[in-house]
Amino acid sequence: MPISKGPQAFPRTEFLRRLSAVKSEMVRREVDALIVFNTHNISYLTGYTTPSGYVPEGLILSMHEEEPVFILRQMDAPAAIHQTFMSRDSILAYPEALIGTPETNGYDAIIDFLHDKGFENRGIGFELGELRFHAVTKFRTRLSNARIEDFTNLVTWIRIIKSDFEIAIMREAAAISDAAMQRAAEVIRPGVREADAVAEITATLARGTNGKPGTNIAEITLCSSPRTGTAHIRWSEDLFREGSQINIEIAGVRHGYTVPLMRTFSIGEPSERLHRVHDAHVAGMAAALETIRPGKTCSDVANAFHRTYEKYGFRKESRCGYANGIGWIEPTASFQNGDMTELKPNMTFHLMLGNWFDEDFGYMISESIRVTESGVEVLTNTPRRVFTL
Amino acid sequence: MPISKGPQAFPRTEFLRRLSAVKSEMVRREVDALIVFNTHNISYLTGYTTPSGYVPEGLILSMHEEEPVFILRQMDAPAAIHQTFMSRDSILAYPEALIGTPETNGYDAIIDFLHDKGFENRGIGFELGELRFHAVTKFRTRLSNARIEDFTNLVTWIRIIKSDFEIAIMREAAAISDAAMQRAAEVIRPGVREADAVAEITATLARGTNGKPGTNIAEITLCSSPRTGTAHIRWSEDLFREGSQINIEIAGVRHGYTVPLMRTFSIGEPSERLHRVHDAHVAGMAAALETIRPGKTCSDVANAFHRTYEKYGFRKESRCGYANGIGWIEPTASFQNGDMTELKPNMTFHLMLGNWFDEDFGYMISESIRVTESGVEVLTNTPRRVFTL
Repeated sequence: MPISKGPQAFPRTEFLRRLSAVKSEMVRREVDALIVFNTHNISYLTGYTTPSGYVPEGLILSMHEEEPVFILRQMDAPAAIHQTFMSRDSILAYPEALIGTPETNGYDAIIDFLHDKGFENRGIGFELGELRFHAVTKFRTRLSNARIEDFTNLVTWIRIIKSDFEIAIMREAAAISDAAMQRAAEVIRPGVREADAVAEITATLARGTNGKPGTNIAEITLCSSPRTGTAHIRWSEDLFREGSQINIEIAGVRHGYTVPLMRTFSIGEPSERLHRVHDAHVAGMAAALETIRPGKTCSDVANAFHRTYEKYGFRKESRCGYANGIGWIEPTASFQNGDMTELKPNMTFHLMLGNWFDEDFGYMISESIRVTESGVEVLTNTPRRVFTL
Repeated sequence: MPISKGPQAFPRTEFLRRLSAVKSEMVRREVDALIVFNTHNISYLTGYTTPSGYVPEGLILSMHEEEPVFILRQMDAPAAIHQTFMSRDSILAYPEALIGTPETNGYDAIIDFLHDKGFENRGIGFELGELRFHAVTKFRTRLSNARIEDFTNLVTWIRIIKSDFEIAIMREAAAISDAAMQRAAEVIRPGVREADAVAEITATLARGTNGKPGTNIAEITLCSSPRTGTAHIRWSEDLFREGSQINIEIAGVRHGYTVPLMRTFSIGEPSERLHRVHDAHVAGMAAALETIRPGKTCSDVANAFHRTYEKYGFRKESRCGYANGIGWIEPTASFQNGDMTELKPNMTFHLMLGNWFDEDFGYMISESIRVTESGVEVLTNTPRRVFTL
């Protein structure tokens, strides 16, 4: 029996609008086809969020067709029919015999398709930066008459400005982040293992809130003393103790949209150093948030943070955040000195002010934000304080 | 303050043995240095499991030094000092200014190091297949006098044979897989949301069992009717119903080692079709397991499955499994017709017999196995049946 379409997070018109923005760029750069490999960009253009991209797959946009064609592994085609906005004729399955073989793979199916459709001597856009070296060699060899144009990050830059539909989904994900951070505050106690706190936090990330479950579980960072100087380490089997500091970074996920949140916890009264660091970060956060509005640049936001923060006697080397949406990081704009990306309404960022001072001491605070018509919306609702347990 | 070394999953001698195996190949291919980029191979050679590899990092083996040098982002260096077997002098942090910039990145720090150490006109091995196209261009341009050798999958093939230390860790991970599948059988009931079952399953994956927590949460696949024809889709917000079939693929994780397990559940008596499919798979599984022993090939195992399975009137197109250990899949040997990899003691595989027959009907069963001196050890203990709830 054919599989039915699943509930769609966005209307068809939303996907056609997104595709239209990409096609405008295809016209400008005179390519007849564009092959999208980045799994987040495929999600953006189709609604597909199944993690099958560890084997070759590609979305092919043609200037001659309204819908793209999605070529992927046979066993994942039903998920694509179910999840995407596209008709079933637009999902092409390549045989399982192309998996686990050294010489041929799913990219050959994509190349065969391009030949069949007469693109082999036309201009074709590729997200070259998404491809492993051997894959590029294959495409160049088997499409030697095509004019290959590098479209790396083109779609990624288009998705930096969200639609209101996307913002609504991100608010749902933000509520899940809040719920999971709240759960952390309930379960972190002396004598509890880090791993058991993570069990409760991750369960909340799946259950979600307000009747909206998490649709995936993003990576969780939880570290406690003496590991708070690490930025991305996983939890351990250690017990929380009186005096432990705990740094947490989590993210609720809805339909691929990932909304991160960082906070710092203390069992017992925070140390004087942690108090000072926290005060500096909260002041720096306020300065950054006050700066965010259309017309300002990413650099302006970072420098507003740094100016305030440095008055407190601290310095932060790492960037102050990055564009985000589908997936944790959109590799486009960053809140850092010199990034002249101009802020526009409905851009979204993870304003990431975590700082790792010493090998054994770091601190985490962040907000996921939206640029509004006149300023900023913080998507989450978690208080901006050190949670003292 | 310096960060302390964390508890080590393996003794130093184990890492030196692994490095020595790699260096033998470096001698054979006359390279003075090897740069390892694959994050699982870095885990294998150092003990580092922090997921920082979304930005450039590389492990540099030199023929002139016992310990490798790990070059990674500044904010992740403390985690590397904490987790790896290496001395702190072997961890080199590159500045945060190399993050989020289009022209320069952490690969420039690796290239600078190679120049400083005089490797720039020597033979250097690279895992080229792990690198994005633009990174290879950078290495080729800035190391134009080096003889670059492709070492893709060299380390991956070395780690296909596990040590007894590794097998012990994989048994711990297997016990977590069993516990999580058991938890699934407890919580899947009519009227429960898929997402709420996942919350309980994932909590068990974090909590672990026998006092050994999961050290990471691997991806969870849970789909129920009418989506059982999908192979890798995430859960939905649907409720389980009387008559629902549920397919689950999970994996316990210990120190990077990931031990997958698939089972199929039925709320109420399984359909006659599901019964027939299950019987064919169990018979095929038995035939495959009976075939596994040193000296047989991966192809032999797949064909033992197919011969038995086809007697029941079914066919499976996808491969019957793949090598596994650190990470879900080791991209080396597969249980499929024509893969002449010879089985050796302490090779480990995910014997994956899931089959997706129709768009709306699939079935999952698998075992994670070890090749023993004389046959096979199934690492998990979950009964090989359709769980009827």
